[in-house]
Amino acid sequence: MKDNPALHVVKIGGALIDDPEKLEELLNGFASLPGNKILVHGGGKQASALSSRLGLQPIMVEGRRITDEATLDIAIMVYAGLLNKRISAWLNGHRIRAIGVSGADLNLIVSHKRSPEPIDFGFVGDVDQIQTDRVIQIIQLGWVPVFCAITYDGKGQLLNTNADTIATELSLALLNDYNIHLQYISDTPGVLRDLNDRTSTIPFLELKNYQAFKKNGTIGGGMIPKLDNAFLAIDQGIRSIWISDVVRTPDHQAKGTLIR
Amino acid sequence: MKDNPALHVVKIGGALIDDPEKLEELLNGFASLPGNKILVHGGGKQASALSSRLGLQPIMVEGRRITDEATLDIAIMVYAGLLNKRISAWLNGHRIRAIGVSGADLNLIVSHKRSPEPIDFGFVGDVDQIQTDRVIQIIQLGWVPVFCAITYDGKGQLLNTNADTIATELSLALLNDYNIHLQYISDTPGVLRDLNDRTSTIPFLELKNYQAFKKNGTIGGGMIPKLDNAFLAIDQGIRSIWISDVVRTPDHQAKGTLIR
Repeated sequence: MKDNPALHVVKIGGALIDDPEKLEELLNGFASLPGNKILVHGGGKQASALSSRLGLQPIMVEGRRITDEATLDIAIMVYAGLLNKRISAWLNGHRIRAIGVSGADLNLIVSHKRSPEPIDFGFVGDVDQIQTDRVIQIIQLGWVPVFCAITYDGKGQLLNTNADTIATELSLALLNDYNIHLQYISDTPGVLRDLNDRTSTIPFLELKNYQAFKKNGTIGGGMIPKLDNAFLAIDQGIRSIWISDVVRTPDHQAKGTLIR
Repeated sequence: MKDNPALHVVKIGGALIDDPEKLEELLNGFASLPGNKILVHGGGKQASALSSRLGLQPIMVEGRRITDEATLDIAIMVYAGLLNKRISAWLNGHRIRAIGVSGADLNLIVSHKRSPEPIDFGFVGDVDQIQTDRVIQIIQLGWVPVFCAITYDGKGQLLNTNADTIATELSLALLNDYNIHLQYISDTPGVLRDLNDRTSTIPFLELKNYQAFKKNGTIGGGMIPKLDNAFLAIDQGIRSIWISDVVRTPDHQAKGTLIR
């Protein structure tokens, strides 16, 4: 393994973002991370709230939300506008030189509109390419990119993209240049032994105990594909993955699941 | 005068921004400008349109609009979100390496909330400081900053700021490093001899003929403070100021007023 500098890639999402106090707590944690870092944020419920204030009915197909043009505009306004600039303002107010970006800025993340078959999700983009050299240039200037969950098709069309995916793709694209420590922060305090008990966090997972937990049924359901992807990322060279509702900082013992 | 590289600072605003075809025409003009450039954009009428869709009544005091918290959020969503990212996506789709920013990003433009006396305008910021070194770093990377009309107070509070002011302040801050050519693009095709005749553009103004035009009443009213400011900027070292409804490019003779 190369002696690369460390890079923290932190994704924050879920209802935490909607609560100003909790958001500030997360940003405080992120700000205290030493060295190179990237923040990726989702949109919480604020886009849905704006949609309903505008009287727009969510379009659901097979239980999944469709991004029509009006919904895309709302996502751009809330993610790239309100949340991204509020986060950037907070961080810069705390002397972190954050720069809020979408995938369209500097051509940073090019995606393609998802195929309309079998379900037409509308203006949803799946990531094709990260402009790694420009992300590195930003980091090398000592600046902190703050990505919202908006990408574009390389031609001019903005697209809605999952924030977890952006964090993962950024991490994989930067593997050759940094030792990546990836954090997924959302409402759940890590991987739980018992989904109904928020104190049942499994503090540490490696492939061996993960496979045992899968076998004995401790871990199941929707967590399996997520954790399979996490171990795939570890296998590709990501140094650690932290799943929690708080940012893991060097100076305190946060509760969450560390995957290595 | 120093042999500095040229820098084009182009402000686009007014109803032009609301018309997708006209906006694309402006962006085409901007894209064809050679060398270093900065774009600053206003918000057109889209923020007001969103306000009324949300059922918000504009708060007017002495004929002027007040930016309360809800209005600020809308300005951030429309200016920093929808418009800034659409413009950035269009430019990047046309191989211009644009990066959409607000004054909060990288602490680029610090302003202060305007005094509540005599009129409390709410969340409106007057520019205090431009982070010149970081703007230059962005330009030297070959990137094109696209500023929306949102700044912040240096602590975390976003503020609504006039786009013309941002363009002027950026130009003045960069005077020592670039030969600045400033363009103000809005709905009027330049300085008119007759306000009711859109073909009566005065093609060229320098201090001598400007003073004559003032004396004989050809130029009057609201144009006087604007043009006084323009000549002040020329006096401070800005090489040229273009006022028009089209971007002035080297390759075609656009209609507008050139001030030197």
